[in-house]
Amino acid sequence: MESTTIKKLYREHESFEDKQVKLSGWIRTLRSSKSFGFIELNDGTFFKNAQIVFDEALSNFKEIEKLPISTSITVEGKVVLTPNAKQPFEIKADNIIVEGTSSSDYPLQKKKHSFEYLRTIAHLRPRSNTFSAVFRVRSLAAFAIHKFFQERGFVYVNSPIITGSDCEGAGQMFRVTTLDLDNLPRTQDGQIDVKEDFFGKTTSLTVSGQLEAEVFALSFRNVYTFGPTFRAENSNTPRHAAEFWMIEPEIAFAELKDDMELAEDMVKYIINYVMENAPEEMEFFNNFIDNTLFDRLNNVVNSEFGHVTYTEAIEILKKSGQQFEYPVEWGIDLQTEHERYLTEKVFKKPVFVTDYPKKIKAFYMRLNDDNKTVAAMDLLVPGVGEIIGGSQREERLDVLERRIKELGMDVKDYWWYLELRKYGGTKHAGFGLGFERMIMYLTGMSNIRDVIPFPRTPGNAEF
Amino acid sequence: MESTTIKKLYREHESFEDKQVKLSGWIRTLRSSKSFGFIELNDGTFFKNAQIVFDEALSNFKEIEKLPISTSITVEGKVVLTPNAKQPFEIKADNIIVEGTSSSDYPLQKKKHSFEYLRTIAHLRPRSNTFSAVFRVRSLAAFAIHKFFQERGFVYVNSPIITGSDCEGAGQMFRVTTLDLDNLPRTQDGQIDVKEDFFGKTTSLTVSGQLEAEVFALSFRNVYTFGPTFRAENSNTPRHAAEFWMIEPEIAFAELKDDMELAEDMVKYIINYVMENAPEEMEFFNNFIDNTLFDRLNNVVNSEFGHVTYTEAIEILKKSGQQFEYPVEWGIDLQTEHERYLTEKVFKKPVFVTDYPKKIKAFYMRLNDDNKTVAAMDLLVPGVGEIIGGSQREERLDVLERRIKELGMDVKDYWWYLELRKYGGTKHAGFGLGFERMIMYLTGMSNIRDVIPFPRTPGNAEF
Repeated sequence: MESTTIKKLYREHESFEDKQVKLSGWIRTLRSSKSFGFIELNDGTFFKNAQIVFDEALSNFKEIEKLPISTSITVEGKVVLTPNAKQPFEIKADNIIVEGTSSSDYPLQKKKHSFEYLRTIAHLRPRSNTFSAVFRVRSLAAFAIHKFFQERGFVYVNSPIITGSDCEGAGQMFRVTTLDLDNLPRTQDGQIDVKEDFFGKTTSLTVSGQLEAEVFALSFRNVYTFGPTFRAENSNTPRHAAEFWMIEPEIAFAELKDDMELAEDMVKYIINYVMENAPEEMEFFNNFIDNTLFDRLNNVVNSEFGHVTYTEAIEILKKSGQQFEYPVEWGIDLQTEHERYLTEKVFKKPVFVTDYPKKIKAFYMRLNDDNKTVAAMDLLVPGVGEIIGGSQREERLDVLERRIKELGMDVKDYWWYLELRKYGGTKHAGFGLGFERMIMYLTGMSNIRDVIPFPRTPGNAEF
Repeated sequence: MESTTIKKLYREHESFEDKQVKLSGWIRTLRSSKSFGFIELNDGTFFKNAQIVFDEALSNFKEIEKLPISTSITVEGKVVLTPNAKQPFEIKADNIIVEGTSSSDYPLQKKKHSFEYLRTIAHLRPRSNTFSAVFRVRSLAAFAIHKFFQERGFVYVNSPIITGSDCEGAGQMFRVTTLDLDNLPRTQDGQIDVKEDFFGKTTSLTVSGQLEAEVFALSFRNVYTFGPTFRAENSNTPRHAAEFWMIEPEIAFAELKDDMELAEDMVKYIINYVMENAPEEMEFFNNFIDNTLFDRLNNVVNSEFGHVTYTEAIEILKKSGQQFEYPVEWGIDLQTEHERYLTEKVFKKPVFVTDYPKKIKAFYMRLNDDNKTVAAMDLLVPGVGEIIGGSQREERLDVLERRIKELGMDVKDYWWYLELRKYGGTKHAGFGLGFERMIMYLTGMSNIRDVIPFPRTPGNAEF
């Protein structure tokens, strides 16, 4: 008999009525009395379990009723519809084969464990309700992102992970080397001879694929990256990881308003896709992790996002009468408290803040005519604050060169980036979305370590 | 007027007959006579160009006719169907706006450039025919892979890039560090104090996500990874890069035959998807890069893949009478010459070679009952040789521990991998596909440097 899956049984149980099926999975719970027992079986294909009913008629009844949870089994039996029970069906087992027994010291016993503890057993936590939901949502959200861009004809670009330059200056970088640290090669004047390193120079892990995405936008018009990026910052917060995935679309013949439209469409698309394709998981999050979740996500999906300039936002915050920890003055970088006040109290929906002071933004953002602000945008969402940052890029060769020099950087390091402007540059724009931030927003999980399969943070690179 | 795209015009030109449209793109060629001219415009959305006709009626005719190629422009004009011409339509321009001029030293002039030269201008080469085709196919193939697995309910796993262990021993690794190489911290006995490093220990870039994918397969049943992997091997060949992407599916409650079925289905799916979604690009490859391409790909799609054991394959090779550079004997690792002979001359279609000697395969492959071979499989394809390698994994705790010890490795390093077998292990299997190898196979491109946006190879980490 061909195996079926619990997902298929849940989705199509009526067509399975009284049919014989074969299922394989892991025992989540088992209880038995003298002559019969119940197994909650999970096979990984679906959030919910299938209930297996077995009794003494099984030749191995005595063995089965003593199986430790997490044992993997194969069940053959009949599907019985149970329209009045919690589950829409159960399986009356004719035969149960033990695939692999578990051990009584299985760490995921029924009692509730702290997320901190579960991080220490990252190889087992995907078998718990919370983490099976998190990682299925993560998978679906990743696919939603690809689908969104591919449907719109965007070209997916794999920007390089190992990079020879710290062009964006977006943060501290990890060094990548094959030099023998115990026996470093030296030049005649005693310096480390980086020519001996694998790439013949100093290399690091990328902090962003944006500059390379711009190359592709100026060839393919609409492109996106989706890959890992890295920060070697020693920050032990619930929102920072050393290794995380980013989505960086880049669009040519486009201005800031096109960029914001794209971001709004994308965020709504991801939420809708996950709500449709993981209803059981999302219900679980709303019930057990964050009971404001559905309200929050529905509000995002059903709003037209607001728009406000940084200068207006500063005025709003100053006039609010609200006491902020960080005082508000034109020129400051907005803190999470300011961002959340704007999106939660003032706009009560997602809002784009645009046209930030050039001093607090990156060199590549397009200078506005006021010469003080740049065509940047941050998307703020209720419950979190900033979730997306983007900008129109400076396409004017002379302005870009001037900005690079103003900031004390070397134009030679940017030769190819500048050539994009020399050989048929166009208006273009893009943004970055931290994938894990999006997953946290979608699930209500509050620690980034709990939305990454094997998180990397200061002092931690286990598994 | 809303902008349209060249892709839309090609796909739906009949509905645009005599309509006014607005297009933005880059000039690929421009020729003009006294009173009129032609522009081949490419906007990145489509492999082919749109032909723009302009004449003296334009107020800026004199400027336009002198524009260097690669200048970006916006054209407004009328769509005229040209059923008897090479292109199905052309645009009669009413207005041409210059977005960004190019320079006369634009490196991608019309003459043919070597691929070697184009690698030195990786920021411009996606604008050439060959590379626009390569990178669009790369994007579509990536999406095909996600689509294939998601349609089958597989969960996408982001396995970690930075790893604390060299578990697979699959090759030399890059070290990842934040230590100051000019001022290395030392322990009292003069050793480098790796506790001072970012993660508190020695870390490297991953060579494979397989072991972590197994964790997820034993939770979700069917999973796949798709991410960058790294080899610090100093091999300057057309088939090796230091940074490349891998797809690693892993399936639980599955044996080697299920693994092979999955691999066969996946390869056929990718080819079909790309043939359907990039017909113009594929035609270009077949005409200009490798004129055996369509025959080769059609043969793959339409064959039932062959199956042969390693032991049988060795017999076939020995009896072939063929002179091989590397002599054939039971126990050897098959070389490309052997692989190609098997798939091209013997089977004349893709073939799985199974059950390799355990001595030439990794520790985690499932030991067969003969105690000499393991349940491994390599997929060989005509024109290349091996394109996929996989195996059933050793699920028996005692056998796995014995194999680890036999190979002189430390079981402590594998504590979590072993626990997967302790707590409800099941039969499971998986394989790895090098994404770039697949792109080379799909396009006929013969150097891996030409299917990666910004390739990393020994001595080269530009851009």
